Amino acid sequence: MSENTRVDGRTPAQMRPVTIERGWSAQAEGSALISFGATKVLCTASFTPGVPRWLAGKGTGWVTAEYSMLPRSTNERMQRESVRGKIGGRTHEISRLIGRSLRAIIDTKALGENTIVIDCDVLQADGGTRTASITGAYVALAEAIEWARANGHVSKNAKPLTDSVAAVSVGIVDEIAMSDLAYVEDSRAGTDMNVVVTGSGDFVEVQGTAEGAPFTRAELNTLLDLAVDSTAELAELQRTILAEGS
Amino acid sequence: MSENTRVDGRTPAQMRPVTIERGWSAQAEGSALISFGATKVLCTASFTPGVPRWLAGKGTGWVTAEYSMLPRSTNERMQRESVRGKIGGRTHEISRLIGRSLRAIIDTKALGENTIVIDCDVLQADGGTRTASITGAYVALAEAIEWARANGHVSKNAKPLTDSVAAVSVGIVDEIAMSDLAYVEDSRAGTDMNVVVTGSGDFVEVQGTAEGAPFTRAELNTLLDLAVDSTAELAELQRTILAEGS
Amino acid sequence: MSENTRVDGRTPAQMRPVTIERGWSAQAEGSALISFGATKVLCTASFTPGVPRWLAGKGTGWVTAEYSMLPRSTNERMQRESVRGKIGGRTHEISRLIGRSLRAIIDTKALGENTIVIDCDVLQADGGTRTASITGAYVALAEAIEWARANGHVSKNAKPLTDSVAAVSVGIVDEIAMSDLAYVEDSRAGTDMNVVVTGSGDFVEVQGTAEGAPFTRAELNTLLDLAVDSTAELAELQRTILAEGS
Amino acid sequence: MSENTRVDGRTPAQMRPVTIERGWSAQAEGSALISFGATKVLCTASFTPGVPRWLAGKGTGWVTAEYSMLPRSTNERMQRESVRGKIGGRTHEISRLIGRSLRAIIDTKALGENTIVIDCDVLQADGGTRTASITGAYVALAEAIEWARANGHVSKNAKPLTDSVAAVSVGIVDEIAMSDLAYVEDSRAGTDMNVVVTGSGDFVEVQGTAEGAPFTRAELNTLLDLAVDSTAELAELQRTILAEGS
Amino acid sequence: MSENTRVDGRTPAQMRPVTIERGWSAQAEGSALISFGATKVLCTASFTPGVPRWLAGKGTGWVTAEYSMLPRSTNERMQRESVRGKIGGRTHEISRLIGRSLRAIIDTKALGENTIVIDCDVLQADGGTRTASITGAYVALAEAIEWARANGHVSKNAKPLTDSVAAVSVGIVDEIAMSDLAYVEDSRAGTDMNVVVTGSGDFVEVQGTAEGAPFTRAELNTLLDLAVDSTAELAELQRTILAEGS
Amino acid sequence: MSENTRVDGRTPAQMRPVTIERGWSAQAEGSALISFGATKVLCTASFTPGVPRWLAGKGTGWVTAEYSMLPRSTNERMQRESVRGKIGGRTHEISRLIGRSLRAIIDTKALGENTIVIDCDVLQADGGTRTASITGAYVALAEAIEWARANGHVSKNAKPLTDSVAAVSVGIVDEIAMSDLAYVEDSRAGTDMNVVVTGSGDFVEVQGTAEGAPFTRAELNTLLDLAVDSTAELAELQRTILAEGS
Repeated sequence: MSENTRVDGRTPAQMRPVTIERGWSAQAEGSALISFGATKVLCTASFTPGVPRWLAGKGTGWVTAEYSMLPRSTNERMQRESVRGKIGGRTHEISRLIGRSLRAIIDTKALGENTIVIDCDVLQADGGTRTASITGAYVALAEAIEWARANGHVSKNAKPLTDSVAAVSVGIVDEIAMSDLAYVEDSRAGTDMNVVVTGSGDFVEVQGTAEGAPFTRAELNTLLDLAVDSTAELAELQRTILAEGS
Repeated sequence: MSENTRVDGRTPAQMRPVTIERGWSAQAEGSALISFGATKVLCTASFTPGVPRWLAGKGTGWVTAEYSMLPRSTNERMQRESVRGKIGGRTHEISRLIGRSLRAIIDTKALGENTIVIDCDVLQADGGTRTASITGAYVALAEAIEWARANGHVSKNAKPLTDSVAAVSVGIVDEIAMSDLAYVEDSRAGTDMNVVVTGSGDFVEVQGTAEGAPFTRAELNTLLDLAVDSTAELAELQRTILAEGS
Repeated sequence: MSENTRVDGRTPAQMRPVTIERGWSAQAEGSALISFGATKVLCTASFTPGVPRWLAGKGTGWVTAEYSMLPRSTNERMQRESVRGKIGGRTHEISRLIGRSLRAIIDTKALGENTIVIDCDVLQADGGTRTASITGAYVALAEAIEWARANGHVSKNAKPLTDSVAAVSVGIVDEIAMSDLAYVEDSRAGTDMNVVVTGSGDFVEVQGTAEGAPFTRAELNTLLDLAVDSTAELAELQRTILAEGS
Repeated sequence: MSENTRVDGRTPAQMRPVTIERGWSAQAEGSALISFGATKVLCTASFTPGVPRWLAGKGTGWVTAEYSMLPRSTNERMQRESVRGKIGGRTHEISRLIGRSLRAIIDTKALGENTIVIDCDVLQADGGTRTASITGAYVALAEAIEWARANGHVSKNAKPLTDSVAAVSVGIVDEIAMSDLAYVEDSRAGTDMNVVVTGSGDFVEVQGTAEGAPFTRAELNTLLDLAVDSTAELAELQRTILAEGS
Repeated sequence: MSENTRVDGRTPAQMRPVTIERGWSAQAEGSALISFGATKVLCTASFTPGVPRWLAGKGTGWVTAEYSMLPRSTNERMQRESVRGKIGGRTHEISRLIGRSLRAIIDTKALGENTIVIDCDVLQADGGTRTASITGAYVALAEAIEWARANGHVSKNAKPLTDSVAAVSVGIVDEIAMSDLAYVEDSRAGTDMNVVVTGSGDFVEVQGTAEGAPFTRAELNTLLDLAVDSTAELAELQRTILAEGS
Repeated sequence: MSENTRVDGRTPAQMRPVTIERGWSAQAEGSALISFGATKVLCTASFTPGVPRWLAGKGTGWVTAEYSMLPRSTNERMQRESVRGKIGGRTHEISRLIGRSLRAIIDTKALGENTIVIDCDVLQADGGTRTASITGAYVALAEAIEWARANGHVSKNAKPLTDSVAAVSVGIVDEIAMSDLAYVEDSRAGTDMNVVVTGSGDFVEVQGTAEGAPFTRAELNTLLDLAVDSTAELAELQRTILAEGS
């Protein structure tokens, strides 16, 4: 293997094949089954008129998200959080990240007093579940807003979506900066960064973590460059999928 | 609508289209994505050498099951049980039913000191989630046992599966006995019965419940006749699918 | 021991001695201490005007039930569910069964907007705790309705009870079909069935489970015959007890 | 009503009728159904060879207790602690009190490496449930130790019980010091004291609480005098009951 | 060491150095950092207009308390109760004791429909954490009432505090009665008593426990004498601190 | 107010006064009471020989952290997580962040099979509690390692600490980039970033979040510059404090 190729033959800057199946669910107001390689996440958006009590009467809507993994989405079966009786820190962290990412591109005034709950359930996990979740959640969210407009819950002229949003994990593995880490790469990465970027190319979240040795400013810059390129590809795919109709 | 046809045009004795996709999961030792009409359940079987401590040293294996619904598998979003912090009675009841149904056709001596955990996660719900779960779980279980035999955890000559098992819900709706109730039928049914039957046609579970008026011995017999016929069809489909290989 | 006698000398179709002590509790609106042999269950019925919020304004009442075992009702002490911090699947299952059984013979319109909560607490367990619970719960329920009528919460002419209800466990032990299994019989039974029957002889619940080998249609029929006879005896006893007054 | 008589005609120093039914349970190694007037508590003692891991190998035994109320033991139905998912402060407090009271009269060396768990389940509550529990628990404990001696778990000469123990609630109601408060008295008491006393007349616990105005040293002394007299009566009853055999 | 001196040189009747730092918190309406020797407790009082729903409209206020220990306030680190997912019996017991002690010297009518929540968090523990908590909580409570009066929530003439309250632990160690036990003394004490006394010298709580042998009436009297003297010293210190202003 | 000064008169790049009191706890192996302005956090380090079971026999140690806020550390009292019965997502997130930050500068081989648990308890909160926690936790950790070396648990020549670590929050408030945000600034910040930096100036964590509008690459760079400067000041203070001895 040459130094610049990866276990599955990709170049460092190359993402895995990404597919998005819109309108997967017959029940939800918006939905998308997204895959980043072997990672598969079912994203649904549930639209409900009205907001939680603490927001009522302010004329603004609410978007929130929950993330979970099926027990055998992983290589070894994990115990269900419902069986353990509590939600782990990692699950909380990712649910909050997805919610913040979507709220960054929502104009809650334009949404009106309506609530959208996003569920991201990982059916199969091979690294990048949180970034696939954010990228798919945006498509489900956009579908739910189309639905709400078609059903008169959001007015024709209102533009609740101010931009699109997508995310990718980037990292340094064996001293090479790489995009869209698969599980085996992620577990060997010295530095791991999840970057959430709008369709316009601005940052919503930058979360970089030194798993081993601390990282330098130069390494940080290289990783951000990779992330900006990959999320631009994802934004393009989202646009195409949403233009097709469900 | 004539008195003998149903909302989707089926005859009373007719099941919805049933499909089983074997080997859906790249991670699990056995898996099947089963659909009974719009009801879709992902069934995985996780094989682990060894048994829980209370069984150790007895030379017998263990098979257990867990059932869960994705929050937006239903028409209105349900709160996750992990968020509520406890598992509801219905979930417990169905998990236990699936486990008992599978153990009825397993020879745990022949399985050896190995554990198989079945997970049935409902991706989309339109009635009959527990019966689809049992029917799909059997396919995942059979796959996991093939895997275990191929990987030397179960000996070539051992026959841990003594039979196959499948299930159907039958009920009386507007005084007509029907097979494989969809959600709208189930919610109007006066009597509802879940029947688990082996490939040989014997009963593993008979659970009949009067939702409205109590039911007579004659009605019980009609429902059992329907269930025996429908589960025979399911057993035939299971045989075909498993013969094809994954 | 001849093939047709049991460990305590009963014939296969014979129930254990059944006693019902009405009005056991000085606090509850209805109560009964029931024993099926060594199995003893304290059943209370708590009547409250009004219904849960989700039922309010519909003009119908609500009946629900909770089942629990004292920690040393059994041969070995069990941990309390309150100490474990969660309710087990079996407890949930039985609580739901008792509630459904009683709702099958209640006309909730005639009950009016009132709630009755049944508590079945097992003081001593020797098999058949769920069937004794249902049988005793009916007596407590009937007492609570008498109380409600006497106290003006239910009108004189209303008939909230449409029938009576009783239950028995039947099973196949050593190839013999038997009624009202004691614990030692139950744990050796190949097939175990709990049957809930109205005073008129119709079925409310039929729950048959193959603990070992699956069972045939003929065996199912034999067991149902036994259950119908035994519950007819129980219905007669309930009538006598309730006629006596408390 | 003259100033020195009570709602049920008792004199201030007079306890309610106390009955103790030994050996109530067919399952437990020791048991007693105790009543202080309408208050009824079922006390069982579960004997197990061996001790919790943190005590193993020290040659000493362990005695602990759990207290609980049936949901309809009270005038208004209470929610079960198992349903609420946590044990309330009052339950914890009383369980700990019962355990400490019994450990004060146990020689754990003489008990050997054995564990006795006491369960006190209140079937009907009319004040004094914790003091009735302690008094009944002693009888169940003594029975369990007899059983252990008869079954060879405790040697013939060992004397694990160093004394007996009983308890009473005393309090000041309308400025009169009274023994064994019934519920209506307890809820009007300005000062309420639970006193646990050995058969020899020494104190194990003194728990006095000013519910309204603080109390004086003189009032404290009057209450202690009452408690010493009442617990002497209880000790005498315990001796009689245990002498009779079960 | 002579028989009448203690490990830190104190006489039996002597308390450890006690310091109270008023107004420690910049956020709370009342606060005090209290130390009894190495035992340090941060007490805050949170004032909120309004009362819990069950008290609304009765014209009376509410005072309650919560006690907790930091995980490394003790010699060996304890697991957090938030991590264990449940609050232990000891914590509940002490929280309730602090609340009752404060309510004994509060006129809830004069407080008006306002709520004060006291938090006692043990930063460092060396015995006597509950008695230090009560003593410090009174100062925080008095500050919060001053604040409420200054901010117009309680009228100028209202006197919600009817007295002061303080507490001390006393016990018999090696047959000598001692005041204000440090941890090493407490763990060797045969009898341990927590006594809560008003500024006027009357009792609010007397909680004596025989850890080893039961105690006699004479011992009880000696301990109460010690407690009355020590709490008088504490009351004097509270008066001085509160007179100084924050 | 000129555009470049802040509510408390600081310049944009200026931190609040930072104080670190080493050895605050008499019980813990390492401790520090740190303040960033009005934010005060008590950090303790608990050293225990041995490691969790999953690490045993690998020759490496373990460092983990828990973060919590006292209920009245904030402007309005929060409910305790122990009372709510579960730990919130924010608490989990911060505990994990502190643990990862410390593990980045620990050589677990050099630590040997020993465990250090860091507790960061916020006594008073005014923004920056997580960054103050990390900065103080490092001092407590360093103290605990000194203690372990002095007590023979870590060998004289081993260097478990490979660097120091400190953290600061930076953000954009009213379009001005500022360091060490106080609570009122943090709640108005459009972009908020927590940066964890080693003594050598490399990054351990970079967590930037757009609270309002997404942020540009240029803004990200300005914030990182500020963070590098402020954490260099903190590293200098840590060196000075640790050089002084406790």
